[in-house]
Amino acid sequence: MSSEYKAGRLSVNIFGESHGPAIGVVIDGLPAGEKLELDKIKQFMARRAPKKDGTSTRRSEPDEPEILSGVLDGVTEGSPLCAVIKNTDQRSEDYKSVSHLARPGHSDYTGYIRYNGSNDLRGGGHFSGRLTAPLCFAGAVASQLLAHRGITTAAHILSIKNIYDVPFDPINVTAEQLEQVKSRYLPLIDTDKDAPMRELVLKASASLDSVGGVVEYCALGMPAGFGDPMFDGLENRIASAVFGVPAVKGLDFGAGFSCTEMYGSENNDEFYINNGKILTRTNRHGGILGGISSGMPILLRAAVKPTPSVSRPQRTVDYTAMTEEELVIKGRHDPCIVPRAVPCIEAAANIALLSCFC
Amino acid sequence: MSSEYKAGRLSVNIFGESHGPAIGVVIDGLPAGEKLELDKIKQFMARRAPKKDGTSTRRSEPDEPEILSGVLDGVTEGSPLCAVIKNTDQRSEDYKSVSHLARPGHSDYTGYIRYNGSNDLRGGGHFSGRLTAPLCFAGAVASQLLAHRGITTAAHILSIKNIYDVPFDPINVTAEQLEQVKSRYLPLIDTDKDAPMRELVLKASASLDSVGGVVEYCALGMPAGFGDPMFDGLENRIASAVFGVPAVKGLDFGAGFSCTEMYGSENNDEFYINNGKILTRTNRHGGILGGISSGMPILLRAAVKPTPSVSRPQRTVDYTAMTEEELVIKGRHDPCIVPRAVPCIEAAANIALLSCFC
Amino acid sequence: MSSEYKAGRLSVNIFGESHGPAIGVVIDGLPAGEKLELDKIKQFMARRAPKKDGTSTRRSEPDEPEILSGVLDGVTEGSPLCAVIKNTDQRSEDYKSVSHLARPGHSDYTGYIRYNGSNDLRGGGHFSGRLTAPLCFAGAVASQLLAHRGITTAAHILSIKNIYDVPFDPINVTAEQLEQVKSRYLPLIDTDKDAPMRELVLKASASLDSVGGVVEYCALGMPAGFGDPMFDGLENRIASAVFGVPAVKGLDFGAGFSCTEMYGSENNDEFYINNGKILTRTNRHGGILGGISSGMPILLRAAVKPTPSVSRPQRTVDYTAMTEEELVIKGRHDPCIVPRAVPCIEAAANIALLSCFC
Amino acid sequence: MSSEYKAGRLSVNIFGESHGPAIGVVIDGLPAGEKLELDKIKQFMARRAPKKDGTSTRRSEPDEPEILSGVLDGVTEGSPLCAVIKNTDQRSEDYKSVSHLARPGHSDYTGYIRYNGSNDLRGGGHFSGRLTAPLCFAGAVASQLLAHRGITTAAHILSIKNIYDVPFDPINVTAEQLEQVKSRYLPLIDTDKDAPMRELVLKASASLDSVGGVVEYCALGMPAGFGDPMFDGLENRIASAVFGVPAVKGLDFGAGFSCTEMYGSENNDEFYINNGKILTRTNRHGGILGGISSGMPILLRAAVKPTPSVSRPQRTVDYTAMTEEELVIKGRHDPCIVPRAVPCIEAAANIALLSCFC
Repeated sequence: MSSEYKAGRLSVNIFGESHGPAIGVVIDGLPAGEKLELDKIKQFMARRAPKKDGTSTRRSEPDEPEILSGVLDGVTEGSPLCAVIKNTDQRSEDYKSVSHLARPGHSDYTGYIRYNGSNDLRGGGHFSGRLTAPLCFAGAVASQLLAHRGITTAAHILSIKNIYDVPFDPINVTAEQLEQVKSRYLPLIDTDKDAPMRELVLKASASLDSVGGVVEYCALGMPAGFGDPMFDGLENRIASAVFGVPAVKGLDFGAGFSCTEMYGSENNDEFYINNGKILTRTNRHGGILGGISSGMPILLRAAVKPTPSVSRPQRTVDYTAMTEEELVIKGRHDPCIVPRAVPCIEAAANIALLSCFC
Repeated sequence: MSSEYKAGRLSVNIFGESHGPAIGVVIDGLPAGEKLELDKIKQFMARRAPKKDGTSTRRSEPDEPEILSGVLDGVTEGSPLCAVIKNTDQRSEDYKSVSHLARPGHSDYTGYIRYNGSNDLRGGGHFSGRLTAPLCFAGAVASQLLAHRGITTAAHILSIKNIYDVPFDPINVTAEQLEQVKSRYLPLIDTDKDAPMRELVLKASASLDSVGGVVEYCALGMPAGFGDPMFDGLENRIASAVFGVPAVKGLDFGAGFSCTEMYGSENNDEFYINNGKILTRTNRHGGILGGISSGMPILLRAAVKPTPSVSRPQRTVDYTAMTEEELVIKGRHDPCIVPRAVPCIEAAANIALLSCFC
Repeated sequence: MSSEYKAGRLSVNIFGESHGPAIGVVIDGLPAGEKLELDKIKQFMARRAPKKDGTSTRRSEPDEPEILSGVLDGVTEGSPLCAVIKNTDQRSEDYKSVSHLARPGHSDYTGYIRYNGSNDLRGGGHFSGRLTAPLCFAGAVASQLLAHRGITTAAHILSIKNIYDVPFDPINVTAEQLEQVKSRYLPLIDTDKDAPMRELVLKASASLDSVGGVVEYCALGMPAGFGDPMFDGLENRIASAVFGVPAVKGLDFGAGFSCTEMYGSENNDEFYINNGKILTRTNRHGGILGGISSGMPILLRAAVKPTPSVSRPQRTVDYTAMTEEELVIKGRHDPCIVPRAVPCIEAAANIALLSCFC
Repeated sequence: MSSEYKAGRLSVNIFGESHGPAIGVVIDGLPAGEKLELDKIKQFMARRAPKKDGTSTRRSEPDEPEILSGVLDGVTEGSPLCAVIKNTDQRSEDYKSVSHLARPGHSDYTGYIRYNGSNDLRGGGHFSGRLTAPLCFAGAVASQLLAHRGITTAAHILSIKNIYDVPFDPINVTAEQLEQVKSRYLPLIDTDKDAPMRELVLKASASLDSVGGVVEYCALGMPAGFGDPMFDGLENRIASAVFGVPAVKGLDFGAGFSCTEMYGSENNDEFYINNGKILTRTNRHGGILGGISSGMPILLRAAVKPTPSVSRPQRTVDYTAMTEEELVIKGRHDPCIVPRAVPCIEAAANIALLSCFC
């Protein structure tokens, strides 16, 4: 596999299987001398933990990261930072029945072909959403290093199925708003959407189904002039990281897909000067022009597909016996992965931005 | 900059400036012994040439690629393939007036900050859309090597502004259809959309404005089992390449953003067996599961923003004088870049797929 | 830092500090389905353990590697393999006196400048020779995967100071000889050199001094046709890995430096055919021509400098106080690192060779 | 192949075949705003040109580099710099007789296996020493960028066969001495060695043979604190580049192989303070400790094998017919490549050092 994200001098290597002894990450290329607060890392990771209200899986692990290297007295040393998270709640038996039936929407079949049947199938193995825990660890580290440079980042639920939160204000979004949305149980700007979204998820769950949605990310304070076009520009770097989050099937920046229905005169962002600083009056470009940051808020959206593990019976194949079968997925699954995907996508984008400073 | 695309053992290095002596590309990591037909390369590149019907720029260059290395008697040698395209029609004077006024929607200002004012501003310099000519060269090479492996690829205009072509049939699309759409003057499936799209573009042009759209890409025949998740999966590789095409602001795979409004039971693609082959009955996953090809057609969409060079006066800043100014862009610009973006996005995706075989 | 070795699709990421909680390695890009025997890995690592006869440090750790991921039922899964080794015998107090006095021949001063004083100085931190334990783990894994492909590798002490073992026979060396030399307490071909070498080391130790030497490596069975010149050829790949072993200051292949005193007619290796196989009658080229394996035994030598930690008083500087001082290094040090460097250099070269098959 | 050197953000991509239309290089990742003098580049490249005194090949090409991109008004733009050198003196007929006879000491056979017979065999194709012309171009660019940072570099002939020049003074070498040695017809410190070396080469040539030697390189003014151990340290980076120069079979730093016969107390370099700067009284470490520059002169030696193209008859094989044959190499060959290897090795090392600043 290639579970390494590499951009600039930064590399993030994620390892582990859902039902192996441990999962973790090695982050190399971090600048030395950066203060890291473990509490904040844990807070970040806690945002990925299953919700206790029925909208998430009931699998529950403390996910306590243990830092093995690279940090001394709470400060980065410049050497590779390794953090390990033990797997403690591995109910392998739940997965026994899955065996070689390809779960629709999952990588069982493609992984089997790719790895000649040697990959760990228990709980998705290395493909498991569980691997986003070390990703969040790395994203939390990135978040702190970005903060040292005056950059605040956050993501929120832009939509679950057809219920939409309001988007970040592309011009006037503030660091306080970003911090606030991260502190909420469901990361929403318009908290009136909390109840209907929750209801929607529970209803889907009750009908043995699942729903997806869109996550929006914002980075505030990114200075102008970062990114290396054509193929190492900010969009490329971020895309490369964000498409590493399982279930992400789409990504756009600024006005994104909606700009394709605008006129150029509408989509262009007028430059002006404010207090000696060059700004744009609108921000359809999402803070990135030609692959390089413009100094405006960086804005992107990621499409998260509905959880493929649905409890209703599905038709599928046994890819070893080459027979068609009916599959009933048991086990503990998220009827909606979107709330937990929020910190994961934030983590991925944070890492991409951090790479500009490594 | 980092105008190198690298995945697997393949690297594609694009060089040149719009108004320098030449532009070109070095492709390294190609397998040895692959037949290359120069005629087909030129046909591919011709699809990127400006249309003569008023919907494109009137800048016109023969764009004759000269192969300097890596090919002997029409066969790849395994050594780096360099191709160079001379710049012949450089009317620098058109661009003189642009000077240090930041063209909205362009990378003038961000490039200036990134390269401390040393980058070539004439015609966008290295940021110019002209650099997609060597990209198309590389994509055309990739196209032939993919064809040797039974893979056919094509892209078409899915939309210009709010006029939509029909999408590729995600299940039943054929190689013939892919070849056919590439042969059309405007790459459309539903040719009835040709006239209204053309009219829309000319109207935008007449009102000194521009329009964007969506390009859809399909690869047929990609075998199951290619891609290296988490960060070198097919989606990451393709994204990394496609976001290198100027003006691309969004990308999604399979059902993409629209899957966020589906139930899991709708979005999941049922596996079945046909003639001893595992297939899916629907193809919301766009041929990629867990970052690995499934054997189904690979499908993606890229959002292309409206050409930022519009002829109407725009407010902007002089980023050296730090003054606010009015800008009138002269020169020869495409009122709609979408038709010419089609082969570019196809090229980028082809290169990403080829990397799986290098 | 960049403690990642990357060649082809293989990456080896080493992490940890001498006096931190643990050291370890993540190996990504391994083929799936390869049987790994933990016992053989431990045997390999045991060759790096301190000798109990006074020629090595008296620091002693069990160095039990724990595999956290990537291996299921003794078979590689294709996902990243992480192995961790706990640090158990960390007598930090021994190192307290070193503080900011630059130990001559060590990286204390250069590391301080590079990492702004944030790197862990205890026991050399990430620069410690201890980090070769995870390197040996990775090299042992590589050794087994190479064996699956018919390749046997070994290294031996070619010299300690001015006492020389006989070199490998560049033509007739056998797999049995390679296995035998690895099984010896001191890895020597001519065991008559065991006693005088040992005596030399003890004498150096008694006079509070240290000695270095040369390690020779051989790989037998490497098929012709591997390596990617110019910059990813076998010599580049091996050099890149071997110079990652602390204390290595020189490397040559085949006749190496001695070929500079030969005539071309002497140095050229005549090709001939034996049983339908192309071989050379001599092997000055060390199995590599133009960066590509020739099918002949691969042979290289690495120069290992005398342990810089000598117990006699040395003049040096305090690089924070900027004063000149006398330094007396205490603690447990190897008077000769060469015997323990043998498996480390073997590991590094093994990893480089394995990258050709990933 | 992989004719790309990559370290830090710098990449150097060399392309071309000896008898193709042109050879060249793309350098990406250069900082913007660096003044480049083409005259100095040509002077550097001229040092690689064949000597006119019988000690070199009589093939002679102007080797005029044409810069296609990346430089505007003599200043780097930050975009990829492509330079092309046309091949003008390609007497392919000289090589016709070589056909599929493996020239001993050459990569004909290994290249044939690696590239399935598709690589260009004329004049060595991409393996030709001619490819060091674009390498020298890149090294000359690096030389100027290093000079902007106060770093002076040079290489000289340390030996041809058994005739030795004096080495650089590892402590007191001056920038003037480095410039002087580069200006000499044969790059020697002790010019009394000029005549005997020349005589030795002519004698070898007369007896249809060839000789090799050692090249020594020095970089003066490299500040302390550059290099990324373990695998991207200065020694790794330099080795990775220098082993890309054809015919290099060995490399050592500082005291190198000779330190293996010293005691630790002899090999350690005592630190002291001079005018507020930390220096070492000796420089066995060659300016690199733990992979990081110490601020002392960087010193290395590369072993260059005798030219494998000797004119006397040699026994070899036809690797397609699988027969044993006699080979007589005709054509124009250097009886000693060492003088021309000097700027090539200097170029490779320069590029590696420059990567620390990109």
